[in-house]
Parts: sequence; structure tokens; C-alpha cells
Amino acid sequence: MSKQELVVLGQDQSGCCPALLTAPLDEGQAVELAKVFKALGDPVRLRLLSMIASREGGEICVCDLTPAFDLSQPTISHHLKLLRQAGLIDCERRGTWVYYRLLPETTDKLAAVLTRPGQPTATEAPS
Amino acid sequence: MSKQELVVLGQDQSGCCPALLTAPLDEGQAVELAKVFKALGDPVRLRLLSMIASREGGEICVCDLTPAFDLSQPTISHHLKLLRQAGLIDCERRGTWVYYRLLPETTDKLAAVLTRPGQPTATEAPS
Repeated sequence: MSKQELVVLGQDQSGCCPALLTAPLDEGQAVELAKVFKALGDPVRLRLLSMIASREGGEICVCDLTPAFDLSQPTISHHLKLLRQAGLIDCERRGTWVYYRLLPETTDKLAAVLTRPGQPTATEAPS
Repeated sequence: MSKQELVVLGQDQSGCCPALLTAPLDEGQAVELAKVFKALGDPVRLRLLSMIASREGGEICVCDLTPAFDLSQPTISHHLKLLRQAGLIDCERRGTWVYYRLLPETTDKLAAVLTRPGQPTATEAPS
């Protein structure tokens, strides 16, 4: 599973993120950033992402995701694919099942993009 | 201009935000949060938001927004309306023109929603 999608967020001068709140985005930055927000702009995808992100152990079997929704397996798979293409999650097949995990670099970058100047960001702050 | 749209983000136990990364979102939270992310999931709206947010003085005349885009005034107005309905911006008419400003409470909340547990959030951190 390629992680190439992660580059869609672009980089600001600090090597992190487009500066959404401090300077006008250029068109290319806006196009790439909008793809990630669009992936989050759906209730089913948000619920899938939160189930994956909050799972103890850091990953969840697709077999544990599907029963939570009144949707077909292909529909769930489609939503998972969009989250993956946006660089928000990654997956690994082991045996019969596919296991999904959060890519926290992307949510960290989005949090930084949405943080006002002068406020510490998730990626800059000490853990 | 009503600010009622701000409630769409819901609240977690700390009175801030749905816990996207720490616990599965319920369906209602996901529906409301998805509306705000959907509003951000468009390049023109992201550019408008960044022009508004980064403007010195905190507000910008619609007459300074429109010339930056190769789009009609009604199209720009439609995008601004969607940002306003998502609680991301507010506006005020003064004389001939309408002036737009960021509602930082909403971007702060989104930043908090996307911040991993144990990381300081924009809304919790000292300024």
C-alpha cells in the first residue's frame, strides 16, 4: 500500500504544512488540502476513521468495522479506500483479513494547518 | 448573521469537541462534524477561508475576495455561504459591501478534534 498520498498536504516553510490561517493558500496547495478535508467530509468515513484511530493496539480488522454499519461490504471498502487515498489510514492484509491503522502524520498535519499562529501545534509540541 | 451553526461540532466531556481519535464517534456527532469538513473539502472555499483568516485587521471586504478568482460573484457568494453555514466565518454588511471574518472557535475545535491524546490542543494551550 503506497504512502505516496501523504505528499498531498504540501509543506510550509517549517517543512510541515500549508499555512491556511496565516497566508493565502495558492491554488495547488488548496487543491491538495481540499482532497483530505473532502475525505473527512462524510459521516461514515469519520466514524470509520475514529474506530480505527481509537482502537487499542493501533489497528482494527475490517471484519470488526463492517458490522458497525448498516452498509454493504463493498460500500465500506469504498469509504476505506477514499480514506487511504487521502493518506489518513493504511492497511495490511494478513491471512483472510485486512487490518487498518491510522496514519497520524496526516491528522497531525491537518491539526497544524488549523492551528492559529502563536498556538503550539500537535507536531511541534512536546509529547 | 446567526452563529447557531457553531453548535454543529458537538461537545466532548471537556466541553470542547467530539473525540475523533480517542473513541468511536456516534452517528450524530459524525453527521455534524462531517458538515464542517465537507465545507473545507473544496479548493475555492479553502482559498477564501485562508484569504479571510490571514487578512491583516481580521476582516476582508467581499470586493477584495472576488477579483482573486476566475469565478462569478454569485459563485463566490455561494461558497462564502457554505463556509458561513459551517460556522467557519461570519460577515457584516456595512454600506455597500459585506465584510467577512474568521470564526476561530471553529478552526480551534477542528484542530482539537484532530489532535492526538496527550498532545496539547490549540484551545487548551496557553497563548
